[in-house]
Amino acid sequence: MDFNIRDIQLAEWGRKELDMAEKEMPGLMAVRKEYGPQKPLNGVRISGSLHMTVQTAVLIETLAELGADVRWASCNIFSTQDHAAAAVVVGPPRLGGTPEDPRGVPVFAWKGETLEEYWDCTLQALSFPGNSEAAGAGATGEAGTASASVIGPQLIVDDGGDATLLVHKGFELEQGSDWVDSPSESSEEEIIKNLLKQVHQQDSSRWQRVTADLHGVSEETTTGVHRLKRMAAEGSLLFPAINVNDSVTKSKFDNLYGCRESLVDGIKRATDVMTAGKVAVVCGFGDVGKGSAQSLRGMGARVIVTEIDPICALQAAMEGYEVKTLEEVVAQGDIFVTCTGNRDIITIEHMRAMKDEAIVCNIGHFDNEIQVTRLEQEPGISHIEIKPQVDKYVFADGHSVILLANGRLVNLGCATGHPSFVMSASFTNQALAQIDLWKNRDSYAKQVYVLSKKLDEEVARLHLDKLGVSLTRLTPEQADYIGVTTDGPYKDDTYRY
Amino acid sequence: MDFNIRDIQLAEWGRKELDMAEKEMPGLMAVRKEYGPQKPLNGVRISGSLHMTVQTAVLIETLAELGADVRWASCNIFSTQDHAAAAVVVGPPRLGGTPEDPRGVPVFAWKGETLEEYWDCTLQALSFPGNSEAAGAGATGEAGTASASVIGPQLIVDDGGDATLLVHKGFELEQGSDWVDSPSESSEEEIIKNLLKQVHQQDSSRWQRVTADLHGVSEETTTGVHRLKRMAAEGSLLFPAINVNDSVTKSKFDNLYGCRESLVDGIKRATDVMTAGKVAVVCGFGDVGKGSAQSLRGMGARVIVTEIDPICALQAAMEGYEVKTLEEVVAQGDIFVTCTGNRDIITIEHMRAMKDEAIVCNIGHFDNEIQVTRLEQEPGISHIEIKPQVDKYVFADGHSVILLANGRLVNLGCATGHPSFVMSASFTNQALAQIDLWKNRDSYAKQVYVLSKKLDEEVARLHLDKLGVSLTRLTPEQADYIGVTTDGPYKDDTYRY
Amino acid sequence: MDFNIRDIQLAEWGRKELDMAEKEMPGLMAVRKEYGPQKPLNGVRISGSLHMTVQTAVLIETLAELGADVRWASCNIFSTQDHAAAAVVVGPPRLGGTPEDPRGVPVFAWKGETLEEYWDCTLQALSFPGNSEAAGAGATGEAGTASASVIGPQLIVDDGGDATLLVHKGFELEQGSDWVDSPSESSEEEIIKNLLKQVHQQDSSRWQRVTADLHGVSEETTTGVHRLKRMAAEGSLLFPAINVNDSVTKSKFDNLYGCRESLVDGIKRATDVMTAGKVAVVCGFGDVGKGSAQSLRGMGARVIVTEIDPICALQAAMEGYEVKTLEEVVAQGDIFVTCTGNRDIITIEHMRAMKDEAIVCNIGHFDNEIQVTRLEQEPGISHIEIKPQVDKYVFADGHSVILLANGRLVNLGCATGHPSFVMSASFTNQALAQIDLWKNRDSYAKQVYVLSKKLDEEVARLHLDKLGVSLTRLTPEQADYIGVTTDGPYKDDTYRY
Amino acid sequence: MDFNIRDIQLAEWGRKELDMAEKEMPGLMAVRKEYGPQKPLNGVRISGSLHMTVQTAVLIETLAELGADVRWASCNIFSTQDHAAAAVVVGPPRLGGTPEDPRGVPVFAWKGETLEEYWDCTLQALSFPGNSEAAGAGATGEAGTASASVIGPQLIVDDGGDATLLVHKGFELEQGSDWVDSPSESSEEEIIKNLLKQVHQQDSSRWQRVTADLHGVSEETTTGVHRLKRMAAEGSLLFPAINVNDSVTKSKFDNLYGCRESLVDGIKRATDVMTAGKVAVVCGFGDVGKGSAQSLRGMGARVIVTEIDPICALQAAMEGYEVKTLEEVVAQGDIFVTCTGNRDIITIEHMRAMKDEAIVCNIGHFDNEIQVTRLEQEPGISHIEIKPQVDKYVFADGHSVILLANGRLVNLGCATGHPSFVMSASFTNQALAQIDLWKNRDSYAKQVYVLSKKLDEEVARLHLDKLGVSLTRLTPEQADYIGVTTDGPYKDDTYRY
Repeated sequence: MDFNIRDIQLAEWGRKELDMAEKEMPGLMAVRKEYGPQKPLNGVRISGSLHMTVQTAVLIETLAELGADVRWASCNIFSTQDHAAAAVVVGPPRLGGTPEDPRGVPVFAWKGETLEEYWDCTLQALSFPGNSEAAGAGATGEAGTASASVIGPQLIVDDGGDATLLVHKGFELEQGSDWVDSPSESSEEEIIKNLLKQVHQQDSSRWQRVTADLHGVSEETTTGVHRLKRMAAEGSLLFPAINVNDSVTKSKFDNLYGCRESLVDGIKRATDVMTAGKVAVVCGFGDVGKGSAQSLRGMGARVIVTEIDPICALQAAMEGYEVKTLEEVVAQGDIFVTCTGNRDIITIEHMRAMKDEAIVCNIGHFDNEIQVTRLEQEPGISHIEIKPQVDKYVFADGHSVILLANGRLVNLGCATGHPSFVMSASFTNQALAQIDLWKNRDSYAKQVYVLSKKLDEEVARLHLDKLGVSLTRLTPEQADYIGVTTDGPYKDDTYRY
Repeated sequence: MDFNIRDIQLAEWGRKELDMAEKEMPGLMAVRKEYGPQKPLNGVRISGSLHMTVQTAVLIETLAELGADVRWASCNIFSTQDHAAAAVVVGPPRLGGTPEDPRGVPVFAWKGETLEEYWDCTLQALSFPGNSEAAGAGATGEAGTASASVIGPQLIVDDGGDATLLVHKGFELEQGSDWVDSPSESSEEEIIKNLLKQVHQQDSSRWQRVTADLHGVSEETTTGVHRLKRMAAEGSLLFPAINVNDSVTKSKFDNLYGCRESLVDGIKRATDVMTAGKVAVVCGFGDVGKGSAQSLRGMGARVIVTEIDPICALQAAMEGYEVKTLEEVVAQGDIFVTCTGNRDIITIEHMRAMKDEAIVCNIGHFDNEIQVTRLEQEPGISHIEIKPQVDKYVFADGHSVILLANGRLVNLGCATGHPSFVMSASFTNQALAQIDLWKNRDSYAKQVYVLSKKLDEEVARLHLDKLGVSLTRLTPEQADYIGVTTDGPYKDDTYRY
Repeated sequence: MDFNIRDIQLAEWGRKELDMAEKEMPGLMAVRKEYGPQKPLNGVRISGSLHMTVQTAVLIETLAELGADVRWASCNIFSTQDHAAAAVVVGPPRLGGTPEDPRGVPVFAWKGETLEEYWDCTLQALSFPGNSEAAGAGATGEAGTASASVIGPQLIVDDGGDATLLVHKGFELEQGSDWVDSPSESSEEEIIKNLLKQVHQQDSSRWQRVTADLHGVSEETTTGVHRLKRMAAEGSLLFPAINVNDSVTKSKFDNLYGCRESLVDGIKRATDVMTAGKVAVVCGFGDVGKGSAQSLRGMGARVIVTEIDPICALQAAMEGYEVKTLEEVVAQGDIFVTCTGNRDIITIEHMRAMKDEAIVCNIGHFDNEIQVTRLEQEPGISHIEIKPQVDKYVFADGHSVILLANGRLVNLGCATGHPSFVMSASFTNQALAQIDLWKNRDSYAKQVYVLSKKLDEEVARLHLDKLGVSLTRLTPEQADYIGVTTDGPYKDDTYRY
Repeated sequence: MDFNIRDIQLAEWGRKELDMAEKEMPGLMAVRKEYGPQKPLNGVRISGSLHMTVQTAVLIETLAELGADVRWASCNIFSTQDHAAAAVVVGPPRLGGTPEDPRGVPVFAWKGETLEEYWDCTLQALSFPGNSEAAGAGATGEAGTASASVIGPQLIVDDGGDATLLVHKGFELEQGSDWVDSPSESSEEEIIKNLLKQVHQQDSSRWQRVTADLHGVSEETTTGVHRLKRMAAEGSLLFPAINVNDSVTKSKFDNLYGCRESLVDGIKRATDVMTAGKVAVVCGFGDVGKGSAQSLRGMGARVIVTEIDPICALQAAMEGYEVKTLEEVVAQGDIFVTCTGNRDIITIEHMRAMKDEAIVCNIGHFDNEIQVTRLEQEPGISHIEIKPQVDKYVFADGHSVILLANGRLVNLGCATGHPSFVMSASFTNQALAQIDLWKNRDSYAKQVYVLSKKLDEEVARLHLDKLGVSLTRLTPEQADYIGVTTDGPYKDDTYRY
């Protein structure tokens, strides 16, 4: 690992932030309290591929407290908070770990990885020492990635699906797929292929062994769920999946309220720009777009929305946003934000037509919403790094665009991601999903599931006290009148909130 | 009918308002344009039970333009706009009708019906002349309700389920049910029973004949859908039903944005009260509650929310609303609004504990959210009518509450309901549902259905031009990347918007 | 008077509304309580020219309770609420008045006056019976307007300056001015001239007598203050004036928060139009414009602002509004609102270029912000009255505009004006100004004054309890630190709030 | 200076940020363009005491471009951005400076000064080399502070009044004041006294010489203006002052819109806390409080306001905020923000009563709004530094508060202060004030002035193009109608905006 694990100050700072975050994450704390004594994940090997932030650290230590044997990587090259990683590796004070003798959870992540490092870290997180000895702390980096004694996770926590992808592509290679030798669309794809080939060379049955003992993945994002559903539809999904993203307490909270808090935060830390009076163009009006638009307007920007879906477009219009195509407004915008989950939303042609010093960023999961590669490679465009994660690209005509976080998630690349409280809701879903996947591992098929409405409501309930909310209780007569029980669930599965 | 159908001015005014409303209802106009020539509902008998407003008038004339033989009642004793009713009865100018010789659609509704009149009107709307002659205009009121020659509708447009209820209870009576002789919970229930007994006495097979030829209902509201689902679950539903309420373009538009516009409108027309600075208590944070809370806050009120569902409660907290039980805040509130779909939300005990001149109103479908009957009947409470639909109840200790619209829908009782544009979305769903029910009458079972996502998106699409929205079009590559076609539908059925 | 004073129901309804309004007007009630016993205006003749609404009724009865002999007219042909006028004329219950034997204050106003009637009413309000007998109730209408025994007011409450104008122009005529024979810019100007000539013919020294005993005017509006300042600057002002408009508790409350509540109310009662999704163009971003823009946005409109003042324009931009010239956006707007205090803001040329069925209205004081006269008179434009105060003008090309309240104040013409609570702040300033003008009548010069900061703060303080506000009290150390006393005033006179 | 001036990377980064900021500061750029060629401040010695940020750097270089000989200190120990300071010292590229051979403006400021260093820096900024040689770059620190050859500024740019204070107290000491020997209220006061005594010992006529040639100060803040007005009232003010704070384009923009952007920014960078759902208590509802409350609500917090002024309290209530005393709500708040300009707003007793981990911060000018000294000194309270500017104080009962920026300006201590665009308005006022003070130095008395309305409007106008605003132009008829010229000024001096 590239952050200095032996930097005691980094770990100590991280620990203090974890202490603060725990008080903002009542859902995870309740899970620890309720399930900690029973250890429902006792000895279960869990690999995580999810932004290595302070909040994730609280999730990791919650899984550890439930008994799991956890290894972790980030799912984004910029999103790691090194002090959080250090704190997790050293471990909570009761374990008595030190930087020299870490006793926490191995973490393979640091802020500013190269893509090669990124995929190598993902692999490391998926690689548990094959004998009964516990895996060493991440700092040592010794968990071999190719030895035949290496074993894999029994459960995966995924965010965007990279860990799941690696397992599937590795398995397919062992089954004879020639994907690794096909032409690549991007340099990242090439890196993945090379890594898989290297693993295959050293151990040609590794992924078969891994998948044989892999009982499920819980996936965090819209994007990752989309991949999973496609695989399930094709019949190629190798293990059950719980779609955490579509818990109401995830997608309608983290995506919406999380982005409302973290988008402007990221833009401000990167550029200190005045939001008021600016024209902000938000591409996509899903949950992420809704939160993004609201926060920009809240700060005084005039927001224009682009949409492909007539229903979402009509919603945007009802909220008073102008709805146009990007082509129509590209010359007006001061700030552009992509949040579509789709590719090539802001093309090089769009950027050519923008105002001087227009700010361009993405808060969707993947970095292909903006054509960053073309920006980097087209002749006649010069590059100036203002500071890390803030880059100016100057076009031949002299105008420039300011690209944030290299087109990756701006809230994680330029700030610290969603705040703890809303991540507590998301991660309580993750923790409950992991428990559920393990407990019911024999009954789940290789399909994509969601958590029950009952659990979803429970996640919400765990977060109310912290906010001083008093919940009204139905009388039996009222419950009967609307055909529910007094304890819920209170809504149909199709209810939209 | 109690509005003076011979008042030419009333009909003319109504016609002018219909002309204006048509320009605000692009979805219905598009339906007329696309389907009008084909007459897909040619000769189909349709009974409507839905607030007889200007907007509904445009729906009625749309159904008529599709060929249907329509009869209509309101679904609320206060919600009729008499000029709209008059205009519909007289008919559009091209028919050349006059108040003396009406050529429009028979309407049985006026503002301020008694409950007896209300249910009688509902029955009239369900009663078509049994021979082949077209039913006369409503003004004549001659459509016999008991003659054996009377026949029933082939389709129903329902709002809250009263028309559906009458048919079902009538049918059950003919099947031997003794419900009509059981004790009643309310005076309204007693009225229904008496009406059914009277019909039964005159024609004991009427409802069997009616249901034999009844091919479906499209239901407008959460409340009505709830009734339908219960019947479907019990196996007692007598015909297929399309749940229009759960089209995204209905529940996420009309319930939310409609109430955002019409709640404060109703309160203001009734009381002229200053909203800013007031404490407003909104009971229920579903779509209606969300819209209501937003409008009150938008005008400067401090909004407190009550909720039973932890997820909705957490949403309210995330929007910065205080969330408490009604008991905790009953003494603080200046304005109370119920929007739960449940009963006994504001009890007489709550009203006893309120501030002097607290305003109490309901925007949920039924009038049992507030205990109006107890308010009227408890000893020691005196009543002063300020003006129609605005009543002051004075308690023995001298404090009073101001009750709006007798506890019925305040936006329809004290103002004119949702505005045309948002009703266009809802009613375009209704029109499409009626076409669909008829066209596919042989394939639907006695279950509750929703319209397809494709149609839902189409409804939205029809409303974009009017607002100057430019929709972005997916490239084939982008469509493929997210696994949809370029023409949609763009989302899973579970997507929450 | 044209409202049927003998309609006991009208007066009774008015009385009920006054009872409710009194509870929303704590400032005026506090004035009654504090000053009522002392009768500081005992026998003082006060003429009012101010919208005859329920709220004004509470002001009128407050002045009466302070001992004044009051006569009243409205300052707008559409703004009278007839039931409020009736209630004031009959008088509060303790006086035992009836429609046949009214014992309240004479009021000369009804909804829908002609301009001749309007100016005649203004004159009546300025005409007190010359002997010591109290003027009869307005209903009798007998207060002669021309008899030499007629005397004038000692104080004026003015709104827009029409009463003040009449006195000044009359006085100037007696001094030899030939203004009454000069060409008129409008038909209204002609009416005023004719009225003055008629008075002059009957009594050529009337206005000299009146002004000799006239000790001051308190003026309500920006527009009226502007007129007063101009006269003071020219040296033509005949008596002292208190500029009530520039009390913070007036202009920053009534203009801003009052319009925020009443603009959309007026538009909705007139048109029932959906605000969400519409493009609303607000001309002028002063206090009235700020409130108007906020309310339209709050309901989901996209608001575009026009401004001439770069500071106000920059404020609008900082709030996220698009700021353009009317020419640039005239074809985009669905709703146009003028609030500039200036003339010819929306010209006939603008209206020619608008969308079909664009809604055009004014919330500035005078009706010359929109070129209504040209709309009425230009050839090729036809007129359809939708309902009172809602008129459609159809241009030769077939497109039409919907004009509200004939271009007069839309909130008063189409709804009931600002709500009671905010008017309580404004009118408490009026009441205090009247007391002050009388008490200090010997020390005031013929200039324009404002109330002291101390009184301004007191007006605010009287309105806090009703809203449950707890005010923090400075410690002596804190007061000293910022150089004020613990009781205030707390700010410099230049502080902008 | 403590930032490493020889760190070429720091200066280069600063220069890139200055380049970006210049494009966001159109007012200052226009001043450079218009006045740069004339050099109206040619050779004028200007001392600045104002937060040494990127934006201030653009102001400094603007003054330099107008010909001035500038020296600068920050006015807050935490507010310096070291890269901005470095860039200013090295100077703009056209001067060819390097860290080794700086050719910019001497700056005496770094992030995290001690109070001794702070006051020493202020003195250095006031100390120009007495001979004709230009002062060396700040990095060398050689500008003697005590040599008799030292001379002072001819103009001061002040923020909070510390530079002005030092000159006045030094002058008074030379006049025989014994203030320096009086007991001190704070350790900071002691430090000032010691510094003055030391200077006095070395050069007992220094301040007399300085004031003899000092022609004025332009002051940035409410707090500093308050000090100036008090001195002017007492007759002790030694030179003319321009109150820049009360330009509309300063106090109604920077205070309001600046804080709306930077308060949450500061809190987030410090704590990453979720704002939504939290209870935020804003003490003071002046311009700063209004902006602060709006931004917190915009992010979903429930905001409670405390106020002493009934007018501001009523404004807060009208915006829907709960208004209470701090005592009433201290146990409910999650986040506390002071913005009163007064002292002892949040006392140690308040903090004792807060929730665990309540966040406490200040956005008023001085750090005495929160009783930080007592927090540091009371027995039984332990201190944990989470990270720089984020401190946890743990009370004996175990609950803690999180104090940001040591109670100093949280937006400058924990983030980068107001964004460039709004500071451009403020600083354009500063630049114009400096030009004005110098140009009219013979006509100004020792009083406090504001810039003319005309200049105020001009400042606004310079910022419109950048935002795409089109300003409407009055016709001559319209201008005449409202009694202004078509070029403005458009409002009375008392207009409140």
